[in-house]
Amino acid sequence: MERTYDYDFIVTAADCNAQRELSISTLATYIIDTATGHANELGVGFDRMISMGISWVLSRVSVELSRPARVGRRYRLRTWVASLNRLFSERNFVLIDLDDNEPTGYARTIWMAINMETRTPGDLSSLQPLAEAITDLPCPIAPQGKIAMPELGDDAKEYTFAVSDIDVNRHVTTRRYCDLITDCWPLEMYEKNHVKRFDIAFKHEAHYGETARYGSMAEPGEGIYAARIDSGDHLCTLARLVFTPR
Amino acid sequence: MERTYDYDFIVTAADCNAQRELSISTLATYIIDTATGHANELGVGFDRMISMGISWVLSRVSVELSRPARVGRRYRLRTWVASLNRLFSERNFVLIDLDDNEPTGYARTIWMAINMETRTPGDLSSLQPLAEAITDLPCPIAPQGKIAMPELGDDAKEYTFAVSDIDVNRHVTTRRYCDLITDCWPLEMYEKNHVKRFDIAFKHEAHYGETARYGSMAEPGEGIYAARIDSGDHLCTLARLVFTPR
Repeated sequence: MERTYDYDFIVTAADCNAQRELSISTLATYIIDTATGHANELGVGFDRMISMGISWVLSRVSVELSRPARVGRRYRLRTWVASLNRLFSERNFVLIDLDDNEPTGYARTIWMAINMETRTPGDLSSLQPLAEAITDLPCPIAPQGKIAMPELGDDAKEYTFAVSDIDVNRHVTTRRYCDLITDCWPLEMYEKNHVKRFDIAFKHEAHYGETARYGSMAEPGEGIYAARIDSGDHLCTLARLVFTPR
Repeated sequence: MERTYDYDFIVTAADCNAQRELSISTLATYIIDTATGHANELGVGFDRMISMGISWVLSRVSVELSRPARVGRRYRLRTWVASLNRLFSERNFVLIDLDDNEPTGYARTIWMAINMETRTPGDLSSLQPLAEAITDLPCPIAPQGKIAMPELGDDAKEYTFAVSDIDVNRHVTTRRYCDLITDCWPLEMYEKNHVKRFDIAFKHEAHYGETARYGSMAEPGEGIYAARIDSGDHLCTLARLVFTPR
């Protein structure tokens, strides 16, 4: 049983952003792929959980990058299980630049398991393979703090979730949430700054056909912003981004 | 010099669609990644071309699948250069299911090179590495035919291109064009049918901040539809999809 799991990738031209860097959406998708790969190896992957009537749900993700991941470069996402209690499992990551084998960022994720019938949290502490995999490796970034909630006025942006935004179970993909968050700021913001840290809290699922309302606000401190997505009468997602001048 | 180039991938849970299959958008992105990989190996990749003042542009893509690519399965996209003339290069693909090593689909693509200053087609026939790579391998699907043009009425869907839709040069990504095409039909269409064949013709680039109008119509024949995207006063994209009942 391996306590760490690696996912190697190259930032391709077709899947990078206007600054020739890995986007928040693609990095978040790779983080989920890496977590899924390790969970599958440990015998607690999605299919296994669903056969027990429970589904993994990503509750929070926080990523801090010392420098952006650049097109054409090779990277490794290495993950491990950091903790486990009845309600939550913490899974952490290091992003390694494979050209110099140096860490270029870290990520923290929090996962819950939802009982698919009752829609209440499932008991994680009985998942023995997960408990046995717990490892204490360095993840020198702060855990996610409380994220401020922007107001959404009449001028809030709107987007209606369509087929391309949906994964299994008619839920909106993490990629789409991340795209809406990214789209809160104009292109010039990203040309002048890179995103040093992002925190996303997934509060409530959004569904196919719902119309989301989303927007952002500046927070105290240089380059710090909060973003919010509402959908179907629920607060759906909160995010906090730290922009650093290039 | 290798006349074929392989790109292996797994259809991951985080990046498949509501039917647990590889989406048109992701398959098109992988096709571009594979083409890019081979072009780089041959010494005619994006960076090399840009240093000569020309940029590769995907003009057409056609994909035909005997069955959809499914979540959790491993696949190989194998590509080769099929032909080259002054204006166009044809690059073809086979999609191989790595669990049984059988072809599960084929693709045909047409590429042009645009002179970045004059915005006119560049002369491809002088690209010796490309000429030397030409290979005659089977690609038993029909080339792209003429695609019918749907009318876009006042009720056409609209979408304004934002940061998450943009790649280098402020162009809209192929992924986003494919998402808009996919979104022309409701989820029920994909639950009842799979896409057996899709043809996309990229007519004119769309840009950050433009508002696209898009829609579809049924064509003669069972399950055949055409889709259209207009942006910035131009016909941007035409597509033809063949839906087959599951």
